[in-house]
Amino acid sequence: MQGTRLSTARIRAARRVIDPMFLDTPLYRCEALEPHLGCEVSVKLETANPVRSFKARGTEVVASLLADEGPRAVVCASAGNLGQALAWSGRGRGLDVTVVASRFATAAKLDRIRALGARLELVDGDHETARERAAAIARQDGIRLLEDSLDLETCEGAATIGLELADTAASFDTVLIALGGGALATGVGHVMKALAPSVQVICVQPLGAPALTHSWHSRHVVTTDSTDTIADGVAGRYPVPAVLDDLLLVADDAVLVREASIIAGMRMLLDHAGLVVEPSAALGIAAILEDRDRFAGRHVVTIVCGSNVDPEAHRRWIGTAPADRA
Amino acid sequence: MQGTRLSTARIRAARRVIDPMFLDTPLYRCEALEPHLGCEVSVKLETANPVRSFKARGTEVVASLLADEGPRAVVCASAGNLGQALAWSGRGRGLDVTVVASRFATAAKLDRIRALGARLELVDGDHETARERAAAIARQDGIRLLEDSLDLETCEGAATIGLELADTAASFDTVLIALGGGALATGVGHVMKALAPSVQVICVQPLGAPALTHSWHSRHVVTTDSTDTIADGVAGRYPVPAVLDDLLLVADDAVLVREASIIAGMRMLLDHAGLVVEPSAALGIAAILEDRDRFAGRHVVTIVCGSNVDPEAHRRWIGTAPADRA
Repeated sequence: MQGTRLSTARIRAARRVIDPMFLDTPLYRCEALEPHLGCEVSVKLETANPVRSFKARGTEVVASLLADEGPRAVVCASAGNLGQALAWSGRGRGLDVTVVASRFATAAKLDRIRALGARLELVDGDHETARERAAAIARQDGIRLLEDSLDLETCEGAATIGLELADTAASFDTVLIALGGGALATGVGHVMKALAPSVQVICVQPLGAPALTHSWHSRHVVTTDSTDTIADGVAGRYPVPAVLDDLLLVADDAVLVREASIIAGMRMLLDHAGLVVEPSAALGIAAILEDRDRFAGRHVVTIVCGSNVDPEAHRRWIGTAPADRA
Repeated sequence: MQGTRLSTARIRAARRVIDPMFLDTPLYRCEALEPHLGCEVSVKLETANPVRSFKARGTEVVASLLADEGPRAVVCASAGNLGQALAWSGRGRGLDVTVVASRFATAAKLDRIRALGARLELVDGDHETARERAAAIARQDGIRLLEDSLDLETCEGAATIGLELADTAASFDTVLIALGGGALATGVGHVMKALAPSVQVICVQPLGAPALTHSWHSRHVVTTDSTDTIADGVAGRYPVPAVLDDLLLVADDAVLVREASIIAGMRMLLDHAGLVVEPSAALGIAAILEDRDRFAGRHVVTIVCGSNVDPEAHRRWIGTAPADRA
């Protein structure tokens, strides 16, 4: 494989600084889903931890480096999960954490960031506005700016999921990965290509937030003017060029799915797997629902990447979509 | 400690025959629950596996013994979780599994037992009727009868949860355990008393199915004529004397909780921890809700023992109880 920015050796080293609570997460077949999807389905469950998403794998790496030798203060922009994870990892190491988020972010995520003791600044605008503001704070205050997907710690932390998948890669042939900024996809994709190259790496993004998928298909950065999706965790507009370069090396495909399919996926995971997930975590199931023929007979792993969802919104979405229709 | 029927050495040996998929389950703080409960709360999550309950820990032990040297056919009575687990463990080892259940059992559980290839026989009556019928089948057909909580494999399989808890026992002071037949409580209780004796072992049963709790308090077997609870997984009427003897040695207390508290606990786990659980798995939270003063300032571990619930019933229950009222 032509080289990504990531290093398999550094990914293995990352495992040693991540709290074991976030590692070796459940990976198991969900046979009750399969009659509805027409393929074998396993879930890699990244929600059974104190921050209810995979993001702490990356923030544990960042925070441990900062605690050892860096500045004691760090700021990030976040749709909510990165901020929550950074707040958790920073609190345990005495770091001063600031999170910038859109004031339209999921309330449950913002509440948890505050509860974990981080400073939370809300901006009018979307996630890209929050990114600009976080960069400005870092410049003004001379503190570390953590940039999701650009900073290698976030990719290599997420990539530790790939190490765990590679251990059992003989049993499946496809991995479906939610595509947002790209840390999860480039991280897991890098490890799959390095250690389990027969596994197909398919990224999934909402039709309403397609910038990185369009970029992947056209092989250069494509931006969009707005996003329109309930999948708040993956709703970016400005792909990072270096991340796109990595994604071009490790992804076998990138597909877009409709909102109705995301909701149907959420309901299916609830009704047949007993899992509450946030919209981003249902993207993989949505991709199967939209192209059953493509996945027929395969054994697919989908990474259930987060469960931070407003309970009322979840109930409202679930109430609108029968489980067996996309 | 005076001797129970269980052996810590055999419990350690059990770990070696249980599919690792069922071991080393997530154990983590749920800080978002804590403002509502007034104590530190961690969950030991036994639902992120192919059968969505802890029961496979025991059936893996049974099935591996049978596959090695026993009869190739086995029958059990089950409210649904044991049967599902035995079907799963037996299928992988080529065993012939029969499950007897009440025709009023949770539909989702019965569906999964059938889907896993077991023979399912339904009886008119409750779980005690199913136990009688399973014993009759075993006698007639000369096959192995698996009796939950009486057979040591079920207790020692469940007890492997205790080994995992004991590894971090310095961080908590109380474990809350759903009390049904008693396998989980005597198993985990045995290990706590052996390896972490400072941890308080508190069993929790519904007021509507109090037989074993009444037996524990009166120190002799007390039966009831009926049960009336949504917590189907723990709704027995005839405690097993040998199990009561063990429970008297390892439990520090046994408490009863109201149905409204069980529902409030289920909703709290959904809204603040993102967990869908069956009623039995909310008994621990219900116990805290009913006696906040007792648990104030403590660090409590509650074992979330199963998530096999009919989705519609779950939605109906959740819809009836605000999260913050018991």
